[in-house]
Amino acid sequence: MELIYKGKTKDVYKAEGNNVLLKFKDDVTGEDGVFDPGANTVGLTIEGAGQAGLRMTKFFFEKFAEKGIPTHYVAADIEASTMTVKSATVFGKGLEVICRFRAVGSFLRRYGAYCEEGQPLDAFVEVTIKDDERLDPPISKDALALLDILTNTEYDTLKTVTKEISNVVKEELAAKDLELYDIKLEFGRDSVTGEVMLIDEISGGNMRVYKNGTYITPMDLEKRIFA
Amino acid sequence: MELIYKGKTKDVYKAEGNNVLLKFKDDVTGEDGVFDPGANTVGLTIEGAGQAGLRMTKFFFEKFAEKGIPTHYVAADIEASTMTVKSATVFGKGLEVICRFRAVGSFLRRYGAYCEEGQPLDAFVEVTIKDDERLDPPISKDALALLDILTNTEYDTLKTVTKEISNVVKEELAAKDLELYDIKLEFGRDSVTGEVMLIDEISGGNMRVYKNGTYITPMDLEKRIFA
Repeated sequence: MELIYKGKTKDVYKAEGNNVLLKFKDDVTGEDGVFDPGANTVGLTIEGAGQAGLRMTKFFFEKFAEKGIPTHYVAADIEASTMTVKSATVFGKGLEVICRFRAVGSFLRRYGAYCEEGQPLDAFVEVTIKDDERLDPPISKDALALLDILTNTEYDTLKTVTKEISNVVKEELAAKDLELYDIKLEFGRDSVTGEVMLIDEISGGNMRVYKNGTYITPMDLEKRIFA
Repeated sequence: MELIYKGKTKDVYKAEGNNVLLKFKDDVTGEDGVFDPGANTVGLTIEGAGQAGLRMTKFFFEKFAEKGIPTHYVAADIEASTMTVKSATVFGKGLEVICRFRAVGSFLRRYGAYCEEGQPLDAFVEVTIKDDERLDPPISKDALALLDILTNTEYDTLKTVTKEISNVVKEELAAKDLELYDIKLEFGRDSVTGEVMLIDEISGGNMRVYKNGTYITPMDLEKRIFA
């Protein structure tokens, strides 16, 4: 198969028609051997992490399909750690849309003068630019429009869909007695139809989940969801 | 006189009634002896910088008064390097409202993947939190509302007034063949009436000005404006 792109946690191959194949790897983001969903570097390799991430992604993307939320998902092969998806183009050079239910991570680092660690945030949405070199800076609705990355209307749509998706994940986790603190989503346009859809993955690697105030690692999370 | 607060470039004293007295110092922000309006530290001391800043501030605040733009300005004593102003409370722990006509400074550092240095920006407004420890992070309209710093309506008002004020400065400079690249404003509420007004100063220390692509230092700027 033709390799299109070698990512930090996934490799991307050409597939049939306009589809692409994502190969989930066992590399996870973090620093100095400690997992951190907000990190820009591969911090460690955990055997089975790729399959665990794919299993969760399949689970949630099928949930979103049931609810009529458009995603790039076509099919998954857990054994092979691969997922077939529709080809998409990203906004600008890639954005991350974050939905926050509690103040942790970069939000706390930026606005710690105005909030307490872990304070509830009521599905607060913000956007950051995917730019490792510039440390993924946050960007406002106005700046996104100014730089021709997202129109104001597209921004409003992404914000609404992000809250919807994040609340689905939050409720699924709550049913397992787990609490979603924040989640990072990626969107793109269907290369064929132009439709805006959720892309990438939904796994422990893009979210912070706690149980009674204790952080749950991505691998532990996967076990608890499918227990 | 009773000293209320010792700032980086100004000291604040109690004055008659509800007024306060600002004493402009010769210290300017920068790093390693080089002036930088975006810096959080005093980088150098320039003899006469305080008076030059006050002269420009007086000039612009009187212009704003003519145009009916509310400011904290009451009177200035150039000789004494002091300005009497109405007492104000700031939003949160203090915000900086930046209006950008060209992509330089922190905007370029954050969004350099999407713009060229010096690219025109059409009076783009953004807000940063005054928080030296956290390097004055940018903050969105949504986050300002979430953290009870500014309501959405207050944000829209500040944005409109910021463009108005910045365009007045831009036009005054253009008349001297100078180009305003960006300017940093501060707003507060009148401690007595609650009215939102422009506070702090309008001088070379809060703006980047160029002439035919060459940067003009604050001291040089003051000379050119009153030439």
